[in-house]
Amino acid sequence: MTALPSSQPRYILMHEADNVAIVVNDGGLPAGTVFASGLTLRDKVPQGHKVALVDLPQGSTVRRYNVPIGYALKDIPAGSWVHERLLDMPAARGLDNLPIATVKPEPLPPLEGYTFEGYRNADGSVGSRNILAITTTVQCVAGVVEFAVKRIKDELLPRFPNVDDVVGLEHSYGCGVAIDAPDAIIPIRTLRNITLNPNFGGEVMVVSLGCEKLQPERLLPPGTIPIMDERNVADVGVTAEAPLDVVCLQSEQHVGFMSMIDSIMSAAELHLERLDARRRETVPASELVVGVQCGGSDAFSGVTANPAVGFCTDLLVRAGATVMFSETTEVRDGIDQLTARATTPEVAEAMIREMAWYDAYLEKGRVDRSANTTPGNKKGGLSNIVEKAMGSIVKSGSAPISGVLSPGEKVRQKGLKGLVFAATPASDFICGTLQLAAGINLHVFTTGRGTPYGLAEVPVIKVATRTDLARRWHDLMDINAGRIADGDATIEDVGRELFQFMLDVASGRKKTWAEHWKLHNALVLFNPAPVT
Amino acid sequence: MTALPSSQPRYILMHEADNVAIVVNDGGLPAGTVFASGLTLRDKVPQGHKVALVDLPQGSTVRRYNVPIGYALKDIPAGSWVHERLLDMPAARGLDNLPIATVKPEPLPPLEGYTFEGYRNADGSVGSRNILAITTTVQCVAGVVEFAVKRIKDELLPRFPNVDDVVGLEHSYGCGVAIDAPDAIIPIRTLRNITLNPNFGGEVMVVSLGCEKLQPERLLPPGTIPIMDERNVADVGVTAEAPLDVVCLQSEQHVGFMSMIDSIMSAAELHLERLDARRRETVPASELVVGVQCGGSDAFSGVTANPAVGFCTDLLVRAGATVMFSETTEVRDGIDQLTARATTPEVAEAMIREMAWYDAYLEKGRVDRSANTTPGNKKGGLSNIVEKAMGSIVKSGSAPISGVLSPGEKVRQKGLKGLVFAATPASDFICGTLQLAAGINLHVFTTGRGTPYGLAEVPVIKVATRTDLARRWHDLMDINAGRIADGDATIEDVGRELFQFMLDVASGRKKTWAEHWKLHNALVLFNPAPVT
Ligand SMILES: [Ca+2]
Ligand SMILES: [Ca+2]
Ligand SMILES: [Ca+2]
Ligand SMILES: [Ca+2]
Ligand SMILES: [Ca+2]
Repeated sequence: MTALPSSQPRYILMHEADNVAIVVNDGGLPAGTVFASGLTLRDKVPQGHKVALVDLPQGSTVRRYNVPIGYALKDIPAGSWVHERLLDMPAARGLDNLPIATVKPEPLPPLEGYTFEGYRNADGSVGSRNILAITTTVQCVAGVVEFAVKRIKDELLPRFPNVDDVVGLEHSYGCGVAIDAPDAIIPIRTLRNITLNPNFGGEVMVVSLGCEKLQPERLLPPGTIPIMDERNVADVGVTAEAPLDVVCLQSEQHVGFMSMIDSIMSAAELHLERLDARRRETVPASELVVGVQCGGSDAFSGVTANPAVGFCTDLLVRAGATVMFSETTEVRDGIDQLTARATTPEVAEAMIREMAWYDAYLEKGRVDRSANTTPGNKKGGLSNIVEKAMGSIVKSGSAPISGVLSPGEKVRQKGLKGLVFAATPASDFICGTLQLAAGINLHVFTTGRGTPYGLAEVPVIKVATRTDLARRWHDLMDINAGRIADGDATIEDVGRELFQFMLDVASGRKKTWAEHWKLHNALVLFNPAPVT
Repeated sequence: MTALPSSQPRYILMHEADNVAIVVNDGGLPAGTVFASGLTLRDKVPQGHKVALVDLPQGSTVRRYNVPIGYALKDIPAGSWVHERLLDMPAARGLDNLPIATVKPEPLPPLEGYTFEGYRNADGSVGSRNILAITTTVQCVAGVVEFAVKRIKDELLPRFPNVDDVVGLEHSYGCGVAIDAPDAIIPIRTLRNITLNPNFGGEVMVVSLGCEKLQPERLLPPGTIPIMDERNVADVGVTAEAPLDVVCLQSEQHVGFMSMIDSIMSAAELHLERLDARRRETVPASELVVGVQCGGSDAFSGVTANPAVGFCTDLLVRAGATVMFSETTEVRDGIDQLTARATTPEVAEAMIREMAWYDAYLEKGRVDRSANTTPGNKKGGLSNIVEKAMGSIVKSGSAPISGVLSPGEKVRQKGLKGLVFAATPASDFICGTLQLAAGINLHVFTTGRGTPYGLAEVPVIKVATRTDLARRWHDLMDINAGRIADGDATIEDVGRELFQFMLDVASGRKKTWAEHWKLHNALVLFNPAPVT
């Protein structure tokens, strides 16, 4: 490995009012290190961890992002390593008396002339990929669907070169669950809306068992997607009934396992033919629907990658696109910033409602938002959920927040554009699954510790917070935001690079590394209702 | 198809005190049908559904299995179809004043001389298969593990012919969860104990991300399985440290994706070598650890397949084996039968505790045990959860109940033998996953509506309740208990056939159909604690 340009001891300050800063150098810095500012380290401080810039007497407020991230449990002299065992965490901000839609920013100047090559769907949405998705009503059919998908890929897909992939939408829901519980609406609408994701071209194909609780008509009731495909009527004559696009394994017509596989393959062939006839067309960047999240975060997440994503979020909003940020427990501590940025009181109230719902959900399990942080977060320098939240929120940039989605809701159905808060757990897989349901055609994922996350349904662009990670994981990370900490690029530089990469990936001109290796994590549904 | 021998109109009565019986004939029977008993049908009655044997005045008790399954909502004349809309469901049996260990049956005569060919493990347990399992601490690594498993199967497995399979133990737990919530103990011990399943030969190999909440040391703490493998010490010299059997993707040593795959493959090779050196040996049938459950049930489940399984359960207990039955919501209505059959008051109290816990868990989600039944159950003739429960409990046979496992606990750790109640949800996949953790080496699954269920970790023997299903799904169902309804076999005949088939499957002499087609459903963890 070559020596880095940033061999001088460096720290990064997020706000001029902060009294701690982050050590930037790879490998951290030893006690005795003297910074250009004159500050001398009293302790060894690991990379990404905090150093006290001034003496912090016991009980004083420790500020980062100009926000109290804790109170000193004892006297902390300037130059000390400020880690989580030295800090008392602030209590959660109450949900009363919040500033409501108080920030009235100058409208961001429109960004015009950016386009990508996408697949235009009948409902007006645009796909970044052209995928045959097989919706399943219940886990029982998963083994059979997997068997069929393998055969479809081997035997049919080569005949349909314009189709990118065949994906079985497998999940653990559908039976053995309290399907009439009030909260069951969440997993059910999630599955329904994933089926409608723009990357699947409106070609809905369902495999059902037959006796499950989540019957096809319940998953896709009238007014959502017709399970009976009117386009098939031509084939059977107008007086005949169009065949249902549902393969039911328990149907009397199935005699022997191979008859089930044959049924699935015949149905798939019809959809593949139609998908294969589609072509990319030039569409404005406003057709992007981007979900952003972070995972495996460290103290650099909030310094490099997330601010770069935030800058890119502003570009997307200026271009008329839709961007959603999520991860309720990670923004809970910044609720006052969010309600202030809401475009209307209704949007602010909706955010407060989602936070209150989640507070209550956690309390039922006898935990609170502090259950979010991981050993890796702490090792990476994040002392607690408050500090993590401040670094997480910056992914949302500076645009006004124009709408809120409850878990599993769909952005198009609510008619939302611009910056949207999609309420989801922070769990990478549950968040990704819910954003798929919301209708994303691109997913952006920042990581400091590193994760090989990928989805079969949409491209996942991974942004590394540190150059060390980007270098070691050179064929897993798509964008290196660590150059910001190295002093080699600005937040704006990386934000613009990400924006351009998004247009390339959405157009199919470039692939993400997760797509290259076909790294596909499973869908994980958010089911707050009981199983039976 | 050939005509069935049972063309005469027939019904099956479960107990002489019952006032309803089940119509047996394929396709049901039309109104006007006269049975040998003289009873004439007033309605068309579908197969598996109930007919009133006598006049049932409004408010009277409808009995099946000599238990009240409901109260007539209006007058029901003899010969009527008795369906769920005519019945008021009995309230759940309270958990007070239950009969405690009151049944003192004659001990069942020991059954000696039965053996199978199994893989004896260091801890004394016996495997029915010889599988390399790769334990994962977190969903993040799933895509990488899948990639590696495919390469291991293609490149390494052919060199180790005595190893049956390589399985990545993927799941949705490990991070983004409230890992310190009181109920988190359930998913954590489940994963730990699955790793210890007898079919994996004690060859523990872990793939970890690095920053996840469920650290390897938390999944497998001292006293469970050594993550450091002492057997490796010989290779590195006694003074050196044995290498950990953990591949950590975030480890500094990994540069590039392929280095991760290489690490997993090298670790796998070592375990494959040791697994490949193992040979089956003759062991007594008492080494069987069998999990029984039902799924996709109909009214025949409780008439044919479940009683045959119950007879086989008695044979297994007589042979000294361990049999567990589960599905808390499906036995809740028979709690008085179960507490009466407990060998000791402690066992009875443990069952009551599990039922009370589940009642409270369902109530938190604002549902009750009646959330269990499915559309398919009702279509198949099961009016409500009471009737379903009576049919489900018969899988447990007649032996005394000698122990109770909480969800995710391990039978060996508690030193249990004989008939055990393993408390689990009834969900087929969650029940199967928890029984894997309990340490089963065989899984028996009865089904009336039909499901293509299978697991990668243990053989799943599927028993059909109806000949029609067994005939149509001839290459998915292993045993046809429908012959009991046809009059072609007795409950004892099918129970003995199942017992012999178990010995053959456990010995590797026969494969189940799910193994033949490699139908593998995903592990689904029971996590009653919140996600974050
Ligand atoms: Ca269709
Ligand atoms: Ca996050
Ligand atoms: Ca996340
Ligand atoms: Ca069952
Ligand atoms: Ca079940």
